[in-house]
Amino acid sequence: MLAGLLAEADRRLVLAESCTAGLVAASLGRVPGISRHFCGSLVTYRECAKTSWLGVPPLVLEQHTAASEAVTKLMATGTLVATPEADLAAAVTGHLGPHAPPEQDGLIYVCVAERHVTTGEISVAKLRRCRLISRDRHPRQREATLGVLALLLEHLEDRG
Amino acid sequence: MLAGLLAEADRRLVLAESCTAGLVAASLGRVPGISRHFCGSLVTYRECAKTSWLGVPPLVLEQHTAASEAVTKLMATGTLVATPEADLAAAVTGHLGPHAPPEQDGLIYVCVAERHVTTGEISVAKLRRCRLISRDRHPRQREATLGVLALLLEHLEDRG
Repeated sequence: MLAGLLAEADRRLVLAESCTAGLVAASLGRVPGISRHFCGSLVTYRECAKTSWLGVPPLVLEQHTAASEAVTKLMATGTLVATPEADLAAAVTGHLGPHAPPEQDGLIYVCVAERHVTTGEISVAKLRRCRLISRDRHPRQREATLGVLALLLEHLEDRG
Repeated sequence: MLAGLLAEADRRLVLAESCTAGLVAASLGRVPGISRHFCGSLVTYRECAKTSWLGVPPLVLEQHTAASEAVTKLMATGTLVATPEADLAAAVTGHLGPHAPPEQDGLIYVCVAERHVTTGEISVAKLRRCRLISRDRHPRQREATLGVLALLLEHLEDRG
């Protein structure tokens, strides 16, 4: 369904995944021919990858923590900067546990950003913060993956 | 098991995935605490991502095709260049079909590269070409994922 909407809107998607660890990309990769509209995913599991690949400043990571609204927005816009061919991006961060601080346990941030067709300007289009219902790590990864796909669908439908 | 060997060898792994589309990263992401030894994965689904993120020259992609020994090696070494904190890398490419040319259908290339601890030199350690047994796209993605994990295990055990 997402593949169809991407084709219809003639968009090229790129991802920046932290807590989902590549599961959003792997879901899209199951669709034959998706490479026409899916550039890839920067799976930034350690902070060094967020800095080296997406240009997230170490100071922002330190002040806001890796799973935060500020970092998720910078990941979404940073992945568009790193991928000239893409015009739509989604990023996700979150604490899936075990051993997460209680107030952050199962909390994820999802952000959609886009590049303006004519001006080339990159901006945040949607940001969502949600608490996952699942309790274990793997079901949470799947739930967070669905959260990313849902926000992308919503964005493309709003635009359609 | 791979997490244990990475910890034992005190290595930091980074991945470059094409045909597995993030499934190797997602498998590793299921292990709690893996972020100590796993930096992330560059899921380069389109050629532009191989060029922008990993520095694979467009001419090499054109001459050898994206699923080739030459490109897989450049992806493995390129991901180490892009990730200063990592010292071990694995890359995978392949045609999982449908509509792959018969001679390339289900053929994958897996490469392991490393950064020398003292000299910082990056080199290819292992390269494997194999024909997948599965016939459908999704089982093939899983089989290719196991192929990457197996070559990494083999490399770490050889080094142990």
